[in-house]
Amino acid sequence: MKTECIVLNRERNVSLTAYLLDVGGEFRYVNKRPAVFVIPGGGYQFCSDREADPVAMAFLQAGYDAFVLRYSVGQNAKWPTPLADYEEAMQYILDRADEWHIYRDKIAVIGFSAGGHLAAACATMAEHRPAAAILGYPVIREDTTHECEKTAPGIVSHVNEKTCPCFLFASRTDDVVPIQNTIDMINALNAYQISFECHIYAYGPHGFSTADSSVQPAHTKMPARISDWVKDSICWLKDVMGDYSQDGLGDPVCKAKVTADSDAWLSLDCSIGRLFGNPEALRILAPVILEMRRKIKPFAPGMTFEDMMQTLGKMTLRNLLIERQIGVELFDELEKKLQAVPNI
Amino acid sequence: MKTECIVLNRERNVSLTAYLLDVGGEFRYVNKRPAVFVIPGGGYQFCSDREADPVAMAFLQAGYDAFVLRYSVGQNAKWPTPLADYEEAMQYILDRADEWHIYRDKIAVIGFSAGGHLAAACATMAEHRPAAAILGYPVIREDTTHECEKTAPGIVSHVNEKTCPCFLFASRTDDVVPIQNTIDMINALNAYQISFECHIYAYGPHGFSTADSSVQPAHTKMPARISDWVKDSICWLKDVMGDYSQDGLGDPVCKAKVTADSDAWLSLDCSIGRLFGNPEALRILAPVILEMRRKIKPFAPGMTFEDMMQTLGKMTLRNLLIERQIGVELFDELEKKLQAVPNI
Amino acid sequence: MKTECIVLNRERNVSLTAYLLDVGGEFRYVNKRPAVFVIPGGGYQFCSDREADPVAMAFLQAGYDAFVLRYSVGQNAKWPTPLADYEEAMQYILDRADEWHIYRDKIAVIGFSAGGHLAAACATMAEHRPAAAILGYPVIREDTTHECEKTAPGIVSHVNEKTCPCFLFASRTDDVVPIQNTIDMINALNAYQISFECHIYAYGPHGFSTADSSVQPAHTKMPARISDWVKDSICWLKDVMGDYSQDGLGDPVCKAKVTADSDAWLSLDCSIGRLFGNPEALRILAPVILEMRRKIKPFAPGMTFEDMMQTLGKMTLRNLLIERQIGVELFDELEKKLQAVPNI
Amino acid sequence: MKTECIVLNRERNVSLTAYLLDVGGEFRYVNKRPAVFVIPGGGYQFCSDREADPVAMAFLQAGYDAFVLRYSVGQNAKWPTPLADYEEAMQYILDRADEWHIYRDKIAVIGFSAGGHLAAACATMAEHRPAAAILGYPVIREDTTHECEKTAPGIVSHVNEKTCPCFLFASRTDDVVPIQNTIDMINALNAYQISFECHIYAYGPHGFSTADSSVQPAHTKMPARISDWVKDSICWLKDVMGDYSQDGLGDPVCKAKVTADSDAWLSLDCSIGRLFGNPEALRILAPVILEMRRKIKPFAPGMTFEDMMQTLGKMTLRNLLIERQIGVELFDELEKKLQAVPNI
Repeated sequence: MKTECIVLNRERNVSLTAYLLDVGGEFRYVNKRPAVFVIPGGGYQFCSDREADPVAMAFLQAGYDAFVLRYSVGQNAKWPTPLADYEEAMQYILDRADEWHIYRDKIAVIGFSAGGHLAAACATMAEHRPAAAILGYPVIREDTTHECEKTAPGIVSHVNEKTCPCFLFASRTDDVVPIQNTIDMINALNAYQISFECHIYAYGPHGFSTADSSVQPAHTKMPARISDWVKDSICWLKDVMGDYSQDGLGDPVCKAKVTADSDAWLSLDCSIGRLFGNPEALRILAPVILEMRRKIKPFAPGMTFEDMMQTLGKMTLRNLLIERQIGVELFDELEKKLQAVPNI
Repeated sequence: MKTECIVLNRERNVSLTAYLLDVGGEFRYVNKRPAVFVIPGGGYQFCSDREADPVAMAFLQAGYDAFVLRYSVGQNAKWPTPLADYEEAMQYILDRADEWHIYRDKIAVIGFSAGGHLAAACATMAEHRPAAAILGYPVIREDTTHECEKTAPGIVSHVNEKTCPCFLFASRTDDVVPIQNTIDMINALNAYQISFECHIYAYGPHGFSTADSSVQPAHTKMPARISDWVKDSICWLKDVMGDYSQDGLGDPVCKAKVTADSDAWLSLDCSIGRLFGNPEALRILAPVILEMRRKIKPFAPGMTFEDMMQTLGKMTLRNLLIERQIGVELFDELEKKLQAVPNI
Repeated sequence: MKTECIVLNRERNVSLTAYLLDVGGEFRYVNKRPAVFVIPGGGYQFCSDREADPVAMAFLQAGYDAFVLRYSVGQNAKWPTPLADYEEAMQYILDRADEWHIYRDKIAVIGFSAGGHLAAACATMAEHRPAAAILGYPVIREDTTHECEKTAPGIVSHVNEKTCPCFLFASRTDDVVPIQNTIDMINALNAYQISFECHIYAYGPHGFSTADSSVQPAHTKMPARISDWVKDSICWLKDVMGDYSQDGLGDPVCKAKVTADSDAWLSLDCSIGRLFGNPEALRILAPVILEMRRKIKPFAPGMTFEDMMQTLGKMTLRNLLIERQIGVELFDELEKKLQAVPNI
Repeated sequence: MKTECIVLNRERNVSLTAYLLDVGGEFRYVNKRPAVFVIPGGGYQFCSDREADPVAMAFLQAGYDAFVLRYSVGQNAKWPTPLADYEEAMQYILDRADEWHIYRDKIAVIGFSAGGHLAAACATMAEHRPAAAILGYPVIREDTTHECEKTAPGIVSHVNEKTCPCFLFASRTDDVVPIQNTIDMINALNAYQISFECHIYAYGPHGFSTADSSVQPAHTKMPARISDWVKDSICWLKDVMGDYSQDGLGDPVCKAKVTADSDAWLSLDCSIGRLFGNPEALRILAPVILEMRRKIKPFAPGMTFEDMMQTLGKMTLRNLLIERQIGVELFDELEKKLQAVPNI
């Protein structure tokens, strides 16, 4: 492993530490690596070492390169300076992506507390969008944000259909950053059909980081399972950015959006509701709809096929057809036709 | 183990199956057992076997007695009949609690989908309140509820300070019961400071039950970690109802409410904000406040002690004093005095 | 679930308890189930309830039917009476396999301590051989066996090429049944190339059963991971007996023997050493050997191809050819020819 | 984290890479760290990168400093050169233990395959003995050792009462280093009452390292649980070297030896057999023996107290007295007297 510490701004004490695992050689089928970009917390007053290296190590173990950003805090935290630090650091990485053997489009951010606010800002407002964001007991709401840094914006109103997939975790009894922050975030992600995972543990203090005994005293009142976010978020990253295979990273098994309803063109991944509301789509889908009418029995007596389709309206057509084994052999043809229809 | 199947209503096909583990004998320090009350789903149209025995077995393994309720569905599901079935079944259990060696106040409900709706109704509206509720991809919102059973009420507006602790889990891509149901529930629980835990997995179908390969086909598109809710909810039950010890069940390590702010009398478990807003409490707490002023340094330059207390206002005083090692020797005395002050 | 308690011998107090999960209906692709046959310990003096139902529940949860045998103990334990109890019980089950929807050839035994001795006897000496055996801190050695029951035989000398796959677990500090028992057993299994898995935990008392807090006091000095044998043995059972799939139980991924060296006829699953020592096999394999000579580089300078093959002699030819991508397209043809050659 | 690469011998290409985590500051109660010393495998022909950094990262995540040794291989591997490389590297570390904030007596070795041979040699023959050894699919037997390096000794005959606690893991179907190597090692450790833990997984290839998808292809035929050795060995290290607490590392919960039978003086941690065979000990223990005679009922009719004590002879007296609640208040006094008696 190579390590580098790059000073991005000496005055504001901004730096990027790079931990770069080897590629090639015995790592036969690893020619490039995905990466995580770690943003420690500290209420925009300092950058917590407890949420820096211990986190980087967890992802290094799983084969991800890791970067730790020390960003502008205290007097220098005036918005958007911290976000600008991120942009500069990310640009620095992207400029060296080939040399460092990093997948440009497989860099996830992970931030904690106020660092979770900054990571969420990267996910929703940055020019250089990460591929995924892991948010640990993040500051999200405007009121909590202002307790840390008065000039920084709340996150919720910036969530939209371009936000990247998010993994959130927090303690329900966090008495520094109220759990309402995490709830508001998943509520917003849901509104825009963004993929997310969320683990709220019943109790535990703010700032538990990896919850390892070298970071958080072993006698802390918190459940043993609270450290599961580490392994769970690693598995999730493989789900949303792809896992190692013999031909580089494989395809993600979990898409960034739940349906394709906000895409520019129709597809089988649009919801049934969306497709059945589009006359052109209905014409294209006529052969499978015929078969659906025959095969899909209503849940309850008195229900019509149309009632059924309304009940299942949030499901993607692809999922329904696969589940019921209908028209799978027509998928390629249907998809081609649908993708020629504007989604309006 | 003894098993019994009790027919509660032959016409409506309502029954209670009891799985009762042995006590005493070699189970030296187990003279009574806590229990789970399983409520399968099925859209109020049927009771799903996939969410009945497989769930009961998981909790039997962990030393809990288990009951499975088959409640009124289909034509008979008109509200509040299913809830009345629960009340009758619970009364039946309570009447036999001594004979069956069950802790009357340590019975948790666990429900799935529409059964999660019924379990949540038990937690918020029933006469016989459970000690805890585990809600699997539950129907919560009024709109989703009405898709199952038009006469049944939404849950959210019934959550209040008497609601029991809840553990929720669901798949983010559930396309039958939208994830908004789970989000709305934790939002309501948070508003009333009710203890909860919540796991939303990134993807997976509706109705995955225990996600064991004998229940949900192994090739289903869902993450391996989705089955973790089983072990996690068992650990959580021990946290909120107490774990086995040599003198019966021990004390819960996780209280039912995050603070005592809605109790009738003040205590050290009230939030700092609540206590500092009460002149009588301020007088009682004078000695520790003096020490707090000396020991608690403001986070940032320019902050006063009062600012600090506002920032920490959601923390309970007990937690803050323990964390900072202030006045712990005075706790008994202070608690006694505070508990004489009405919380108004 | 149905439960039945069958008295096999009233005088000797021998009984079989059957826990039979439902099949069909909503368990769409489960028409038959594999099963576990639980044999509790107790030094052949009694049958421990702590190693009976709690174990059955663990496997019921995973979709296995479960049987608990209470066998002849104390005055009645004279060998081979306990083994005869097993045979009778197993015969009883096999007679009802259709009615009970059980796979005749997918019944595993699981025994603890002296029950582990009996389970190991089933695996090595019984007429009705189980498909797999899980042995918890088992009594294996003759000396330890005689401390329990003077007439019972040691197990080691009965292990042979017909012994079924075994999963063993124990505590290294067990001061009732010394760990040497477990070591001697895996040593014997290895000598006959029998598949096994073995977990010896660093410390913990004898008789920890599932190590659940309802069975073994939570304050017991034992590592938290000691209970992992439960989930690990369930995964292992799926490996060696097959897991649920849409067409009944799938093929095992782990074979009962490490190589086919003791089979009656040759095959690609014989070791390289075995095959290269057989002139007929060498002739059949000539085309792949030619390619092997070209493709397999010696580990060290000075090594010949023959040295290499000796070094790799314990590997099956199939594994080597797959790893090196040699002649895979010829497998069916080679296998057919090899299986016509007696393995002498 | 600081990293350093120290060239120990340029000609033989021997180097030590040091990964040193921060101490103090926010790691409030971490002023020194325990460490792991990683020894990659490669048949004494090369040093495998797959068993170097990926392993170091796993332990760094858990708060251990990590060192990776690249030792003499190929032409330079003549024994005892690789062991001498270890000694030199360890001396280098010990010389800098204060500067690097490392506990001198809390350094564990971890080696794989031939590196497992070298790690086992460190544990049994080195001048600088490690506090614990983790041995991954290690080469132990003389025959297997000689296949790697003809001049290197087998390990088994070097195990004795001074060997450190060992954690072993391997695949049962390893066809490069036969599982007999692991079995022979635990057999030897047991003979000298050395503490150990051992996990043999049912199947998987040689050289699976951490089994992470970035190290071992995800489609490899091996059980998912095979990677559990990583978390299990970390928990075990905490058990045998102590875990972080507010006053530095706490006491180990698992001692290096199962009984004190090979210590120079008697103690309550000697086995009952040992103590009851020593007349002086019998006199000292008279008061508790009296109580034992009253309280300990024989297992079976016809057994005398003496029979019972023989049956329990391998148990330490301390464990028996604690279990039966006998004479615990006399422990300090008895221990003092016993420790004045030579153990001969």
